[in-house]
Amino acid sequence: MGSTSDWETMEHCVATLDQLGIDSRVRALSAHRTPAALQLFVEESDADGVEVFIAAAGGAAHLAGVVAAHTDRPVLGIPIESKALKGLDSLLSMVQMPAGVPVGTLAIGKAGAINAALLAAQILGVADPEIRAAVQRYRAERTEKVLQASKSLTRPS
Amino acid sequence: MGSTSDWETMEHCVATLDQLGIDSRVRALSAHRTPAALQLFVEESDADGVEVFIAAAGGAAHLAGVVAAHTDRPVLGIPIESKALKGLDSLLSMVQMPAGVPVGTLAIGKAGAINAALLAAQILGVADPEIRAAVQRYRAERTEKVLQASKSLTRPS
Amino acid sequence: MGSTSDWETMEHCVATLDQLGIDSRVRALSAHRTPAALQLFVEESDADGVEVFIAAAGGAAHLAGVVAAHTDRPVLGIPIESKALKGLDSLLSMVQMPAGVPVGTLAIGKAGAINAALLAAQILGVADPEIRAAVQRYRAERTEKVLQASKSLTRPS
Amino acid sequence: MGSTSDWETMEHCVATLDQLGIDSRVRALSAHRTPAALQLFVEESDADGVEVFIAAAGGAAHLAGVVAAHTDRPVLGIPIESKALKGLDSLLSMVQMPAGVPVGTLAIGKAGAINAALLAAQILGVADPEIRAAVQRYRAERTEKVLQASKSLTRPS
Amino acid sequence: MGSTSDWETMEHCVATLDQLGIDSRVRALSAHRTPAALQLFVEESDADGVEVFIAAAGGAAHLAGVVAAHTDRPVLGIPIESKALKGLDSLLSMVQMPAGVPVGTLAIGKAGAINAALLAAQILGVADPEIRAAVQRYRAERTEKVLQASKSLTRPS
Amino acid sequence: MGSTSDWETMEHCVATLDQLGIDSRVRALSAHRTPAALQLFVEESDADGVEVFIAAAGGAAHLAGVVAAHTDRPVLGIPIESKALKGLDSLLSMVQMPAGVPVGTLAIGKAGAINAALLAAQILGVADPEIRAAVQRYRAERTEKVLQASKSLTRPS
Amino acid sequence: MGSTSDWETMEHCVATLDQLGIDSRVRALSAHRTPAALQLFVEESDADGVEVFIAAAGGAAHLAGVVAAHTDRPVLGIPIESKALKGLDSLLSMVQMPAGVPVGTLAIGKAGAINAALLAAQILGVADPEIRAAVQRYRAERTEKVLQASKSLTRPS
Amino acid sequence: MGSTSDWETMEHCVATLDQLGIDSRVRALSAHRTPAALQLFVEESDADGVEVFIAAAGGAAHLAGVVAAHTDRPVLGIPIESKALKGLDSLLSMVQMPAGVPVGTLAIGKAGAINAALLAAQILGVADPEIRAAVQRYRAERTEKVLQASKSLTRPS
Repeated sequence: MGSTSDWETMEHCVATLDQLGIDSRVRALSAHRTPAALQLFVEESDADGVEVFIAAAGGAAHLAGVVAAHTDRPVLGIPIESKALKGLDSLLSMVQMPAGVPVGTLAIGKAGAINAALLAAQILGVADPEIRAAVQRYRAERTEKVLQASKSLTRPS
Repeated sequence: MGSTSDWETMEHCVATLDQLGIDSRVRALSAHRTPAALQLFVEESDADGVEVFIAAAGGAAHLAGVVAAHTDRPVLGIPIESKALKGLDSLLSMVQMPAGVPVGTLAIGKAGAINAALLAAQILGVADPEIRAAVQRYRAERTEKVLQASKSLTRPS
Repeated sequence: MGSTSDWETMEHCVATLDQLGIDSRVRALSAHRTPAALQLFVEESDADGVEVFIAAAGGAAHLAGVVAAHTDRPVLGIPIESKALKGLDSLLSMVQMPAGVPVGTLAIGKAGAINAALLAAQILGVADPEIRAAVQRYRAERTEKVLQASKSLTRPS
Repeated sequence: MGSTSDWETMEHCVATLDQLGIDSRVRALSAHRTPAALQLFVEESDADGVEVFIAAAGGAAHLAGVVAAHTDRPVLGIPIESKALKGLDSLLSMVQMPAGVPVGTLAIGKAGAINAALLAAQILGVADPEIRAAVQRYRAERTEKVLQASKSLTRPS
Repeated sequence: MGSTSDWETMEHCVATLDQLGIDSRVRALSAHRTPAALQLFVEESDADGVEVFIAAAGGAAHLAGVVAAHTDRPVLGIPIESKALKGLDSLLSMVQMPAGVPVGTLAIGKAGAINAALLAAQILGVADPEIRAAVQRYRAERTEKVLQASKSLTRPS
Repeated sequence: MGSTSDWETMEHCVATLDQLGIDSRVRALSAHRTPAALQLFVEESDADGVEVFIAAAGGAAHLAGVVAAHTDRPVLGIPIESKALKGLDSLLSMVQMPAGVPVGTLAIGKAGAINAALLAAQILGVADPEIRAAVQRYRAERTEKVLQASKSLTRPS
Repeated sequence: MGSTSDWETMEHCVATLDQLGIDSRVRALSAHRTPAALQLFVEESDADGVEVFIAAAGGAAHLAGVVAAHTDRPVLGIPIESKALKGLDSLLSMVQMPAGVPVGTLAIGKAGAINAALLAAQILGVADPEIRAAVQRYRAERTEKVLQASKSLTRPS
Repeated sequence: MGSTSDWETMEHCVATLDQLGIDSRVRALSAHRTPAALQLFVEESDADGVEVFIAAAGGAAHLAGVVAAHTDRPVLGIPIESKALKGLDSLLSMVQMPAGVPVGTLAIGKAGAINAALLAAQILGVADPEIRAAVQRYRAERTEKVLQASKSLTRPS
């Protein structure tokens, strides 16, 4: 994530990864303020066999793009809701990447943070049947929960 | 893709997949006009072992979300540039998915179409070293091409 | 509605339907998380003679479009005010439907919820003089209320 | 429609109504430039038994709202694509109606024009089985056409 | 104003008119909910010699346009800050009037309310030297106040 | 106007003033590039008895605000359609004036140019019965023209 | 700054200038309400050898443009977050300056205020090695702080 | 610039620098596709004494931010007009930089390109009286040209 203040959003991402049984490394590094440390982290992680990168940033959200420039692994991006423009700036500066360097962008804020974890799991699940099964369980549980919650609003009951 | 008129954009996606040596199935099916055929195609493809879905649509672009509702495979989305609102509608209705059903969204239009192919290749490359190598070659060639093209504008030369 | 959290908005819709003497069925079902249950509900309701569908959703608001794909009854849509983009995403992903599958879209939030009920009543009133009379009474009462409320601000009094 | 220049869009609406076997009256009347003629037309049409009103306008698109103020029949609105703001102004000034006076709003431009006709037919179809059947035929034909058109893009064929 | 809830904004308009010594009539009347009462008020006011109309409304803000359709007096408009879209809808549906029926539009919210009063005074001041003098005094006082307030922030002092 | 390139839009304003029998002075002066000449022109015009100012500008459209800072006469503004942002920038930088310095803002582009002339005439018509009569004739003619044009689209004829 | 209410944002700018050892003059002067005092301040400051101007304003934010019209020194602008449109109006009316009169625009609000101070220091640092060194120290300290703060979120730790 | 396709815009920047007698180095390098070459160029240029950096990019326009991350020299940014979103994406991803790493952003497109050159000259002019004089001449000539061009539109002549 680009700033420690993004943790409020990103803890939902990490919690979802944990729940799906996926190991993760968490860092707060900035494309602008700590470019060298960021590049080092991406290159080391890549060398260590990290298979998916998830980047969250707000405003002029370059983090995901800069990560994508330094790895050929899939990079997912979460636009953080910014104070003035409510994440429209974060979204546009993340999703509108030029041809050649993709960032798979998720929704602004908490929903995006959860979904980045889930999409990472789907990606890993392509080759790992255990993770794929974890995704299927996760989705089945949520579907069940939605259907349960829905009952309280069902009318006529 | 949601409409045959999206082919103008999506042929760049298919060409990139071809170039990267990735097999693909192409269909023009609509979440709204042909929901049954769409669901059937997603479920059959899933059963056949299709590993990544790429959906392109414009306006109220529900295609990617509906595909994602019917598979646990990674789903990537390309917002097509719409006539009046220039793809802002397509982008927002694709990227702002609720928690639980992710769509990894790429840029509006042609850049997004190319990048969806590339991100799909990166995803497959997690488990397939040949595809990973193809991605690396593709990116190296593009970098080289950018550097070559750049020379004509380098001043002083 | 797409989520139980939409009830805060949609209770105004149901209250207005009740006030106009119109029977309704209420469900919280998601186009993405419970597609099968949603399709079943639409098809059963259609078979049972439900004459108008009202769908409310926020963010990438596909619910109304998906309902419209499964019935030939009139479908009305209410964009729920979303957290980051304030319902602009919900509005665009609901109203910008492609030719062939209309969603009659109302205002974002509470006003839209009330108006969806009222428009449903106007639709039913085409064939049912009692409901039409109820709409006329409802509007006459509101007009009267507006004129009364207006008196406190009339200057010079 | 609010101006004769809207005909380019609205001819698709009238053609669709014709195709569905629905009688219509067409007028170009402005909420701002010919308010008296507009009010007279709405009141006379209402008295003559017109069952649904369709209003198309661009920019500060008040036409649908003003029609809705003068009838208790369902009113549908089509935001015309405006020159500078591309119909965003038309859309917002049509859809954001206050509680009590609904306008069922369709997509900006041609898709909205076709869909207004179709939604009007769905509304009339609530009480008129022949029109309902016409809607079903129309949608079945379009579905078939989409599936046919799709074949040319199906790969592998 | 279109609703009694607009008074929170419009009291600043009336207070400014009072301060400038300009008589005013205040009404809360809706273009959609009380069109007849609105038209009557505009026509009676016009006949009584009212020289400027000021209309404030939010969302699909048609009030000013409808007033302008019923008088040849200058009409000024104040977009009220709406809940979801923050007055962008109000602004666009007020300012984008078609050729032939102008609405002189001021800023969204309180600043616009004060400025509508001031612009009305400038308009009346074209023929009335006393009002023109009142405008000049008002602006001189504000300039003085701004310069005084500025002193507390002047650094080095 | 702020630039000679605005003439394409503003000739419609001047033509309308001519048609209404109102004398005008036309200048292309920039708030940014020729501030001294602009201030001089405003002050001299004010001293000469000019009664209404009309300012047209695009992009960061400060012209109307700067004119309003130098006169207590009514100032009307026309946002010129800009290349990239289509006049949204021009509109917002013209209409969102702070309390104390109003600019009565019209629609973006040609409609705004015509309406600024008409609103200026309405303003002058407060004290000048001849101009008021000209406005009434102008509007009556336009109404007639709209009704005539409308006939070609009236169906059934 | 254009208003004393901007101080809440601008104190971060002044604090950063102080921290970097740069002398500054602070004034709250309005392009619209105190144009003469503003022009005088710019011209006197220019004559006194002020080397960079920083202007902050909200809404129709003309301050920076008007300052730039009266000096050939670099002018930096900070869009203040406005109440209704959250600073989008301020940003567009500041950054979209016409060719010939540049305003180097920073981010909306507090980040922009800090960055205007920093960019001013970078500008002065072109010729003043002490200020350049201060910028380098400031950035090194921030980088260090970001890396320290990041540690608390580093996982696995 | 981020791509050779930006040259169409940036040649106006280089032409203005030439006209002002300022030496420049021109490169087309991408933050995403050629990050190593970009970093090398910035660091070498910095070491060679380059005093101002100007970066132009479109879409997710990270170039200026990445340049600013690698130098403590002033960095100016020009948002290139993008195909779908017309440069709004480029603008927001350039101007909304976080505190600590400023990018002085100019207008979208050609005006911004010219103004970046001019602002660079103003920056260099702080220490270099010859460049300052060149800026003054440039602006005086433009003012003169505007006043001349204005004459053809002056009415009465």
